[in-house]
Amino acid sequence: MREVAVLGIGQTSIDEHWEKSLRELAGEAVLASLQDARRESVDGVFVGNMMSGSANHQQHLGALVADWVGLRFVEAIRTEAACASGSAALRAAMIAVASGAMESAVAVGVEKMSDSPGPEITSALATAADADYEADQGLSFVALNALIMRRYMYTYGWKHADFAPFSINAHANAVNNPYARFHEPITADGYLRASMICDPINLMDASPMGDGAAAVVLVPAETIRFQAKPLITLAGSAAATDTLAIHDRVDPLWLSAAAASASRAYAMAGVGPEDIDLFELHDAFSIMAALSLEACGFAERGQGPRLAQEGGIFPTGRIPIATLGGLKARGHPVGATGMYQIVEIVEQLRGQAGKAQIDGARVGMSQNIGGSGSNIVTHILRAS
Amino acid sequence: MREVAVLGIGQTSIDEHWEKSLRELAGEAVLASLQDARRESVDGVFVGNMMSGSANHQQHLGALVADWVGLRFVEAIRTEAACASGSAALRAAMIAVASGAMESAVAVGVEKMSDSPGPEITSALATAADADYEADQGLSFVALNALIMRRYMYTYGWKHADFAPFSINAHANAVNNPYARFHEPITADGYLRASMICDPINLMDASPMGDGAAAVVLVPAETIRFQAKPLITLAGSAAATDTLAIHDRVDPLWLSAAAASASRAYAMAGVGPEDIDLFELHDAFSIMAALSLEACGFAERGQGPRLAQEGGIFPTGRIPIATLGGLKARGHPVGATGMYQIVEIVEQLRGQAGKAQIDGARVGMSQNIGGSGSNIVTHILRAS
Repeated sequence: MREVAVLGIGQTSIDEHWEKSLRELAGEAVLASLQDARRESVDGVFVGNMMSGSANHQQHLGALVADWVGLRFVEAIRTEAACASGSAALRAAMIAVASGAMESAVAVGVEKMSDSPGPEITSALATAADADYEADQGLSFVALNALIMRRYMYTYGWKHADFAPFSINAHANAVNNPYARFHEPITADGYLRASMICDPINLMDASPMGDGAAAVVLVPAETIRFQAKPLITLAGSAAATDTLAIHDRVDPLWLSAAAASASRAYAMAGVGPEDIDLFELHDAFSIMAALSLEACGFAERGQGPRLAQEGGIFPTGRIPIATLGGLKARGHPVGATGMYQIVEIVEQLRGQAGKAQIDGARVGMSQNIGGSGSNIVTHILRAS
Repeated sequence: MREVAVLGIGQTSIDEHWEKSLRELAGEAVLASLQDARRESVDGVFVGNMMSGSANHQQHLGALVADWVGLRFVEAIRTEAACASGSAALRAAMIAVASGAMESAVAVGVEKMSDSPGPEITSALATAADADYEADQGLSFVALNALIMRRYMYTYGWKHADFAPFSINAHANAVNNPYARFHEPITADGYLRASMICDPINLMDASPMGDGAAAVVLVPAETIRFQAKPLITLAGSAAATDTLAIHDRVDPLWLSAAAASASRAYAMAGVGPEDIDLFELHDAFSIMAALSLEACGFAERGQGPRLAQEGGIFPTGRIPIATLGGLKARGHPVGATGMYQIVEIVEQLRGQAGKAQIDGARVGMSQNIGGSGSNIVTHILRAS
């Protein structure tokens, strides 16, 4: 496989974009990424999206997006892996460019959730879980995560307040991200007083919905080695699945697919957790941030909250996470999230993250989680 | 890119499978393909599906299928390109194996449509069209095809009866396919007397829904060159998009994306239309069979029905199509169709097509159409 580089990035703000349609959001991000890459076209378009069939009565987003941005007759498909749909698009695009099947590709994640009533979105989100054995029993997606968090608190002896640093860090960092949904810092007291959604998950443990799109342009690294400064490559890329339903897992408190995909990505990039300068993880719920840190080797099993409390996750800590707000405060437009993570890592590696800049960032990692840990995609980006 | 071979195939019958769930259908086809390939596992699972989010309240089919067949921790995603979702899965799997990212993969197409009421399926099918500019104007998917067929008849002077050979051929061939939805031959008189659905498309111009799944196992050709007899390779593979909405096309009677993907596939395989022994095309509606034959170089523009009337599409004709029933009589479980086409071509190239066998078949082509011609995937398989 050829080494693949990120040549351009683009994103929309995350918001309730009543004035923009699904195609307009995707188009805005794709065209921005092409402009950033100084390219007029690409050979392929890979669209990550989870729920446009339900939320927008529109599927076939490969053709929709290619058509809308004027890339007539290119190859284009949609990838879907629930909440990991965005990074699944990136990985498919990377493999296509690495294989030689294409000389360039754009991967875009897009989701437009505001158009649908809340109950329909709750129903659409539940399609990420097991329809027959979880959703049909009345479990919403937040309820699944609440079960995991409650069990984690019971097993490892954590209190709800111990998870506060995840949300405080995310909101503090989002203040410096102009594309983020929220720009207000929160306090430990505010965290504790937030409305309960599904015990023990309260409003400050849960990421917000939103509409948005983020895109990157990929090319073979060899074609831009002497022009891109810095050259940013996809040094590691891997995906792994686990059981769809939580009850089938040997240990519901261990993200086996996260561990598997991270270890494959580490091996491909020739690095370990100690080499990662920042980690854009999937903090859809604060419990998922803890579990992801543990599965990827940044904290001992059951000790994610301790790492957070000791400040290890802050911008100046050992492993900064959610450096531009994360899912919690940047926002979580489901199928777009994986691409926002990548775009933000590129901003960090380019030194373009403004007040959110992580000093000396050279290696960044993303992890995008589909379902309750059922499909997990990890990428490692390196600047040289 | 490494050359990729098809090592195993599997399929379910197409029917109203009230007794089997979505995962059971997919699992049956995947396990049959693994057994046929004499493999116990693969590195990746690619699931082509269009409408399970609506029809089965289940997305995340990569994880669902990998979990159900016991392939724990493998990589797995779903691809969606409307009615071309199945062959989009094959192409993604092929690129992954060709790139070296994987040593083996299974591509499976699955759709379970019987679980949903008819109006919901009609609504789900319309998500393949342009939601804002076609479906919102009241156009169902069959109505879009009716517009194309009416315009074609007007432009080229064909009568409705002139399309009869497409349906007669498909139904005659399905008699010999144990997996097909229908096993009854039809007559020219029966074709003309069929109920009108959306003028000029009647029941015998339209393919039937159904539940089903079809799968293939892919490996690098070099790993089985001396063991597989015959060795069946994916000699050509290409995809191309066109405008999502028909009204944006320069000529709505010319499938530009079909022509583009076919010419790329021909170039990759080093063949032309004259080298193709059989053609599994996308006869979702009889007008699409005509347009596909023309775009791929088997008939002059506007002359698809003439080729059919002259017998050129029959098993003994110049370019046999729908050799095991096609979408019209084998059935069209939307996201599965592209994979049924591939499985059937492999049966033909292996000489395992029974009474439907095309004598001396060595090179077979498939073409899978998403939307009204918006996303078209072409594959050429060669036996050696």
